[in-house]
Amino acid sequence: MRTTIVVGNPKPASRTRQVAEALLDRLVKDDADRQVIDLAEYSAQIFEWPSEVMSALNERVAGSDLVVIASPTYKATYTGLLKAFLDRHAAGALTGVTAIPVMTGADLGHSMGVDTHLAPLLTELGAVVPGRGWYFVTSSMDRLDTLADEAAARYAQTIGQIARLTEGAIIP
Amino acid sequence: MRTTIVVGNPKPASRTRQVAEALLDRLVKDDADRQVIDLAEYSAQIFEWPSEVMSALNERVAGSDLVVIASPTYKATYTGLLKAFLDRHAAGALTGVTAIPVMTGADLGHSMGVDTHLAPLLTELGAVVPGRGWYFVTSSMDRLDTLADEAAARYAQTIGQIARLTEGAIIP
Amino acid sequence: MRTTIVVGNPKPASRTRQVAEALLDRLVKDDADRQVIDLAEYSAQIFEWPSEVMSALNERVAGSDLVVIASPTYKATYTGLLKAFLDRHAAGALTGVTAIPVMTGADLGHSMGVDTHLAPLLTELGAVVPGRGWYFVTSSMDRLDTLADEAAARYAQTIGQIARLTEGAIIP
Amino acid sequence: MRTTIVVGNPKPASRTRQVAEALLDRLVKDDADRQVIDLAEYSAQIFEWPSEVMSALNERVAGSDLVVIASPTYKATYTGLLKAFLDRHAAGALTGVTAIPVMTGADLGHSMGVDTHLAPLLTELGAVVPGRGWYFVTSSMDRLDTLADEAAARYAQTIGQIARLTEGAIIP
Repeated sequence: MRTTIVVGNPKPASRTRQVAEALLDRLVKDDADRQVIDLAEYSAQIFEWPSEVMSALNERVAGSDLVVIASPTYKATYTGLLKAFLDRHAAGALTGVTAIPVMTGADLGHSMGVDTHLAPLLTELGAVVPGRGWYFVTSSMDRLDTLADEAAARYAQTIGQIARLTEGAIIP
Repeated sequence: MRTTIVVGNPKPASRTRQVAEALLDRLVKDDADRQVIDLAEYSAQIFEWPSEVMSALNERVAGSDLVVIASPTYKATYTGLLKAFLDRHAAGALTGVTAIPVMTGADLGHSMGVDTHLAPLLTELGAVVPGRGWYFVTSSMDRLDTLADEAAARYAQTIGQIARLTEGAIIP
Repeated sequence: MRTTIVVGNPKPASRTRQVAEALLDRLVKDDADRQVIDLAEYSAQIFEWPSEVMSALNERVAGSDLVVIASPTYKATYTGLLKAFLDRHAAGALTGVTAIPVMTGADLGHSMGVDTHLAPLLTELGAVVPGRGWYFVTSSMDRLDTLADEAAARYAQTIGQIARLTEGAIIP
Repeated sequence: MRTTIVVGNPKPASRTRQVAEALLDRLVKDDADRQVIDLAEYSAQIFEWPSEVMSALNERVAGSDLVVIASPTYKATYTGLLKAFLDRHAAGALTGVTAIPVMTGADLGHSMGVDTHLAPLLTELGAVVPGRGWYFVTSSMDRLDTLADEAAARYAQTIGQIARLTEGAIIP
């Protein structure tokens, strides 16, 4: 299985990255083919056309089985940096990709952003989002292990729930 | 497998109902346990508390494996009738349910409503939505068979895609 | 000036109604021509066609200068009852109306609903919304006076700000 | 009166810029203090911290009476470039600013983006949005004059409508 984490924080090695990694650590058993795209490292190239570096990243995302798309909350939604990266993908580029939206923020006041803004953006690109996104309140970093356990269990449940539909029932 | 169609049109036996049925006919092989809830038949009771009839419908939806939630487009989004029915469900009542949002409308101008309004409402209730919703332009009723074939094929694909994630990869 | 309050709570005489009234009390000086439409009183008729009672209410809203549209938060957005009432208006019926969206809820987790769901619904109907909606956390009912003072001051400011644009600057 | 146009197209001198300028040409009588911020010219600096150039642009926007925020439609919403620019503003930075959201796109299928995504983003920042945003279908460029006349007339109407509320009625 090919997995990718995209981190939309303009600052590298952010808590948002940590949160996304904690989730994927728990969700995928054999995650040897994982790549983390920390967009902070690419901000100088993100508006360059053409760019082999950026195209390779786009292909990595589009060719993944499972992607965690993580962003801090800026102005009640995902960052411009993340959007600029996703803008580089062609229409429907995430068809075949399962994507989990993750947003981090200071309080719950903007928690709806992950489901009303980031999730619809990912489905617009063709991705399938397995249930609600994960909104992580950054004041809970000391409980990241527990909260990531819970989130991973929830996604394992929703993914399994859909899988059971295929046991003879859905026309192939 | 238990399936349910919820139709949010205040007029009974609507094209919206036809569209939802056409989708489910194609998506589920053995659909013996299907119930259609045409909300037009219940509009007189929808604000009554308590109501055994309405509670039974809520339980049917919450206990389904796959639900198609269909609404005509009113004011760029789902109808008040549909929302009033969904409002009767407890928080998280659709946990464990896979739900496909369907909206019908006169033109593409409001097609985003299915993904920016109806899909987030279903995930808010705990449902998993397998990819983009289906927006059906009513002037295409004469091509319903073809378009329902395509939509069903798309959902079979997205459901299968998530199912493949469970083949040894997702921690159970 | 003609003002109207629409209350979308299925229970009559709600805190949501109190909150909306507290705002309008402070915002409009001579509010002799005010009507409060407590939709709980009309739920039995809201899906009846035709209905002289409902049509008269629709005309009242469409003919108002300033409307406060208030709803408790159900499933992260406005109620089905409110939507069912607004659905009865023709396309663009609120053209010429200034509308302030108000939502009440138990905590801030769903506060975005007033700006991402209710406000766009009102502009879709043709209304002008003077700035952010007002989300009122119901645990603050004992501070309603102070909070309504602040909200009214904010709307007086935003309305005045737009008014100043007309002082010779906007082509009439 | 101080006016500003912000253009979120990664390519300079775009049709989106033309559309925004056509609107403001018609809406404001004496537009001597107008600045156009074509973000394509600043994409290399947009993620730099600190940046005097970018800060000056942020201050220009925050100190304007009327701003037209224009973006092509990318993935059913505003561009990442525009969002990255708006992300640089402090919380509430557009308090006191009246902002008209404009989006351009190939067809009507994504026209809701201007009201469900861009307008709420501007109100989140504190701006007042006078009615629906303007979605411009780029295949109509040959009718830009007529369509801009209509849009300007509509905004003159909505701004005037709010202004009339202040004639003795709103508590100052």
